[in-house]
Amino acid sequence: MSAPPTYLALTGGVGGAKLGVGLAQILPPSQLAFLVNTGDDFTHLGLHISPDLDTLMYALAGEANVELGWGRRAESWRFIETLRALGGESWFNLGDRDLAVHVLRSERLRAGERLSRITQQLNAALGTQHAVWPMCEEAVPTIVHTVEGPLAFQHYFVRDRCAPAVTGFEFRDAAAARPLPQLLDWLADPALAGIFLCPSNPYVSIDPILAIPGVRTALRASGVPIVAVSPIVAGLAIKGPTAKMMAELEVPASALAVAQHYGDLLTGYVVDEQDQALLGPLRESGCAAIATPSVMLTLADKIHLAGVICQFADDLRSAAK
Amino acid sequence: MSAPPTYLALTGGVGGAKLGVGLAQILPPSQLAFLVNTGDDFTHLGLHISPDLDTLMYALAGEANVELGWGRRAESWRFIETLRALGGESWFNLGDRDLAVHVLRSERLRAGERLSRITQQLNAALGTQHAVWPMCEEAVPTIVHTVEGPLAFQHYFVRDRCAPAVTGFEFRDAAAARPLPQLLDWLADPALAGIFLCPSNPYVSIDPILAIPGVRTALRASGVPIVAVSPIVAGLAIKGPTAKMMAELEVPASALAVAQHYGDLLTGYVVDEQDQALLGPLRESGCAAIATPSVMLTLADKIHLAGVICQFADDLRSAAK
Repeated sequence: MSAPPTYLALTGGVGGAKLGVGLAQILPPSQLAFLVNTGDDFTHLGLHISPDLDTLMYALAGEANVELGWGRRAESWRFIETLRALGGESWFNLGDRDLAVHVLRSERLRAGERLSRITQQLNAALGTQHAVWPMCEEAVPTIVHTVEGPLAFQHYFVRDRCAPAVTGFEFRDAAAARPLPQLLDWLADPALAGIFLCPSNPYVSIDPILAIPGVRTALRASGVPIVAVSPIVAGLAIKGPTAKMMAELEVPASALAVAQHYGDLLTGYVVDEQDQALLGPLRESGCAAIATPSVMLTLADKIHLAGVICQFADDLRSAAK
Repeated sequence: MSAPPTYLALTGGVGGAKLGVGLAQILPPSQLAFLVNTGDDFTHLGLHISPDLDTLMYALAGEANVELGWGRRAESWRFIETLRALGGESWFNLGDRDLAVHVLRSERLRAGERLSRITQQLNAALGTQHAVWPMCEEAVPTIVHTVEGPLAFQHYFVRDRCAPAVTGFEFRDAAAARPLPQLLDWLADPALAGIFLCPSNPYVSIDPILAIPGVRTALRASGVPIVAVSPIVAGLAIKGPTAKMMAELEVPASALAVAQHYGDLLTGYVVDEQDQALLGPLRESGCAAIATPSVMLTLADKIHLAGVICQFADDLRSAAK
């Protein structure tokens, strides 16, 4: 009797967190782990802020602010309003409840605790038992190169509202970072049945994870299907600057181009039902591909997509045997 | 034509801030400066917290939380409630609005700004133009020695609610601290007409200021009357642990004992009208003394007491000429 199949999901941003919620609904903590982009992390007002870790944490805990699309639900803004009135830097909005996470994380990092451990403690405090791992313990800040010069990610993303045209990306200090041992253990486990690249921004959510030395190799060495879900639907990004970035990088803003970006890392690719026409070209390029409704508005949508990708990975594994 | 008389008020805690409000009502910024205890300052959750600076700042700005007796008015508690729920250290209550001050101060200190400059910026942002100086730029943490061992001040005061019996006080690293140049300039100015020791706790609000090397000497060298207002009225402290500390130190909890504690630093002493009987012993000991209503419940009470001490200082100065 073999152990139940396990899965790993690479994620960053809101789209990835939505699929994460679906996966967490159908897979128990023993069968699902998340590997999360921390290239967005930055120090602001003396606080270590991990936007993608928090987006996933709040989503998994049912604490996401659905109206805003970021931050924590039932939020209040007394701190940041007061900071603004005092002349403090207030371009990065920090809710009063959200702030508690940043203060606690920062304090524990200063005390010498590892980011991975703090992340697990925070998720546990909010009732989540699934493994949520930062891509590494080290700081690997994403630098967005733009026509106006290099920008720290949050300066590009929040302060400048993604306005400057992008010319490239840099994952600073990635060479000195190391994959988490628990990730390597998970990937080496014979129970592993699939790896998912969530419908996150490939350039600034997934690529930073893949830039950690050893991660890409370990993903491929696992020998299990690696299935990506396109963040582009009918030429548009559901949320965020993916399509805008692609245009600026002179890449067609299409699901096909995202698959080409991931290249031979992929075993399978999932496009939205609106992009059925891309299945032919994808398969011609040698990538197994399916189409399914992938726009996640309801919990049922998330569970549906999670079920589809698990089944797809299982099918690909059976086919390869 | 001589310049208008100027005054310096040494203060810490709520009683001192109340008299500070009265003084600021009757003296323009050019004629009044505050020298504030920072022995209570501590680092908590990575934030530099300056309780006495903030108590005075909020009082002068009309932002003090009168119901609580500390913190900022119209406060909310979403941050600390969330921090508590996450398992963070929550014994020191931090309001959402108050937190903005701590975050801003901490950030600017980390950026290398001086505490005195940050203090002035914060006060200015809240509309206060009077000079408010920390007793020094350096950290000089008050350690409360108790029968249970030494305690950092806020651990004694807030976490342990002043329960452990006090055996003494230590102003750690005071020897390495220096008076502010602007204080020394103010004291050397021929316009200086009086120095006030506000009705603050002598052991943990005023003594830390006097422990900064050169301060006591500079106060006396100014040659102007040094007038203290008793924090003890009819054997009781209006607020805080002064009377409890005196009992534990085996000192009678009386206005007289406070005057004796300050010793020959004092030129004049102000007791409450309820302590009229102490005027005889005080004068016999060589200290000029007056009695006046000193319990400050209303703004009028504060203005009255401020007026009395200014007049008393002027009278003492005239008498000495």
